[in-house]
Amino acid sequence: MPNATRDTLAQLSSHYAGKRCLVTGGLGFIGSNLTLALVEAGARVTVVDSLEPRHGGDRRNIEDAPVDVVIGDIGEPDAVRDPLAGAEYVFNLAGQVSHLDSMTDPLHDLEINARSQLAFLEELRRISPKARLVYSSTRQVYGRPQVLPVDETHPLDPVDVNGVSKLAADRLHRLYHRVHGVPATVLRLSNVYGPRQRLDGDHQGFLPAFLRRAIEGEPITVFGDGSQQRDCIYVDDALRALLAAAWSPSAPGEVFNIGHHEHLSLLEIAEIVVAAAGSGEVLSAPWPEERQRIAIDSYWTDYGKAARVLGWEPTISLAEGLAETLANHRSRLAWQA
Amino acid sequence: MPNATRDTLAQLSSHYAGKRCLVTGGLGFIGSNLTLALVEAGARVTVVDSLEPRHGGDRRNIEDAPVDVVIGDIGEPDAVRDPLAGAEYVFNLAGQVSHLDSMTDPLHDLEINARSQLAFLEELRRISPKARLVYSSTRQVYGRPQVLPVDETHPLDPVDVNGVSKLAADRLHRLYHRVHGVPATVLRLSNVYGPRQRLDGDHQGFLPAFLRRAIEGEPITVFGDGSQQRDCIYVDDALRALLAAAWSPSAPGEVFNIGHHEHLSLLEIAEIVVAAAGSGEVLSAPWPEERQRIAIDSYWTDYGKAARVLGWEPTISLAEGLAETLANHRSRLAWQA
Repeated sequence: MPNATRDTLAQLSSHYAGKRCLVTGGLGFIGSNLTLALVEAGARVTVVDSLEPRHGGDRRNIEDAPVDVVIGDIGEPDAVRDPLAGAEYVFNLAGQVSHLDSMTDPLHDLEINARSQLAFLEELRRISPKARLVYSSTRQVYGRPQVLPVDETHPLDPVDVNGVSKLAADRLHRLYHRVHGVPATVLRLSNVYGPRQRLDGDHQGFLPAFLRRAIEGEPITVFGDGSQQRDCIYVDDALRALLAAAWSPSAPGEVFNIGHHEHLSLLEIAEIVVAAAGSGEVLSAPWPEERQRIAIDSYWTDYGKAARVLGWEPTISLAEGLAETLANHRSRLAWQA
Repeated sequence: MPNATRDTLAQLSSHYAGKRCLVTGGLGFIGSNLTLALVEAGARVTVVDSLEPRHGGDRRNIEDAPVDVVIGDIGEPDAVRDPLAGAEYVFNLAGQVSHLDSMTDPLHDLEINARSQLAFLEELRRISPKARLVYSSTRQVYGRPQVLPVDETHPLDPVDVNGVSKLAADRLHRLYHRVHGVPATVLRLSNVYGPRQRLDGDHQGFLPAFLRRAIEGEPITVFGDGSQQRDCIYVDDALRALLAAAWSPSAPGEVFNIGHHEHLSLLEIAEIVVAAAGSGEVLSAPWPEERQRIAIDSYWTDYGKAARVLGWEPTISLAEGLAETLANHRSRLAWQA
């Protein structure tokens, strides 16, 4: 098992040299970063991405990396049959991530995050049942925390349709392990940020909205007193978790929370973003109703199980990660929508 | 609040005289029994049922009761728009109940039990957001019990796709209460049996299979040592819970386990069935693989919350309920498939 606590992203990805990897959602935020890291390490990467307009995919995210790209929904057997054939590692990152969108178009969210995932699992178990599979679930499956920090035994009570759909897929991955022997691992990721995350629109989460406003010199709006806390992980730390989970012999059938010990209020996070950007300001505003009714108060992660079993810990502070992220976004703003 | 502990089915259903009630799945097992009870009490009942061939619906279940029947899937807005208009009470019983079928056709199960339910909730919150809504969830959402008896705080970890789909709908009902104010209540029912339950095929659950074999004088097969325990509730007791939950002012937003204090091994239940039927015999057989991998060992219900909040308790023993059930089935075998 790799010792991910100390192992860098480069060390962890080096295990995949020459390996056949499939990355679903590979043109999206986390998927494209993973794809580039795997390609850099010498892996043979295939990407399946639907390029749904409001999701995170963009062809430019993987630049001209030597990758086979299939444009299609993972719920369509025709789109995934060839990519699955021969895959040794499947990083299943495809999905719709917006909590707000899941409430205005709940059926689309269920279709993408539950039905397509189930159809994908059915194809995978037929075509490539021995491939190591890692699914990116979300802290949202826990809903409003009853105790903090949140570990994997916390009750599961999602507060929005996105949480319900993602939890269904989370369970289905474990079920396909138990019933069909698929070596699947589930990571429940906290708020991930970094290069290639979409900043346009406010539906992708609070950090992209904060970053865009700071970069553009606009005020960042914090709802209520801004005291609700979050832990945020830089995308490279999330990639280290994905790579360790797909490699570790102890990971199949397991669920791991992936987050950060650094937990800060949204007000503090907004102030750090403004300081890092050198522009923008922080304003308070009353809660909009459509946000307040799916708000979860404070959340931060107990990642002790990932530390024990995968040897994974986050390595990058919010200040460090934001500096990287801002530098990257500034260089890419020209083509951001 | 009605005192359902003592109130009979007739007393509870009398509250609904003159009320406009919608019963989804109203041609199925529980739905048709409920429909007949409501009609008997003078309610104005509309039924929506898809009559999907492998599900439980059959027009003959409601005989010639004066009921508006709409044949359609509750996931189709056109099928439910008129039935929802003006509905004061919605008993949402539509679904696919076979655990085995959910593993051979998982996408159908998710479509029926999660997607159609979500589409129905969307129509309901637009057309009839104040209607009292009761959803029939299942003990299967808990999966393999970690402690016995199982109360509503037990971890939710379904072992088959049916459990995942039903749990998604279970959560969605509570979410539509929290977020949209729909007065929804969820009942997690244990094994329900009684008149109008389909006995054909072995995919509907163990009790229908036991009953059919006993009636036909065939041996009942119990897998393994038959020591896994279950609680079974007679359909009239399930109806009492549905009627109490739709009426009680304390029920919206709540989840209740509905089961029986009488818990018996499958071997004991098989022997009681044979004794009640006066025919058949009990045989042991090794577990078929497709059943063993979704088996949950023993389950029985802690229905204390329903007793406290709804004043509901089961009133009919397995021996009494089986006698009723067998008498009814014998009189109806002529048209059973």
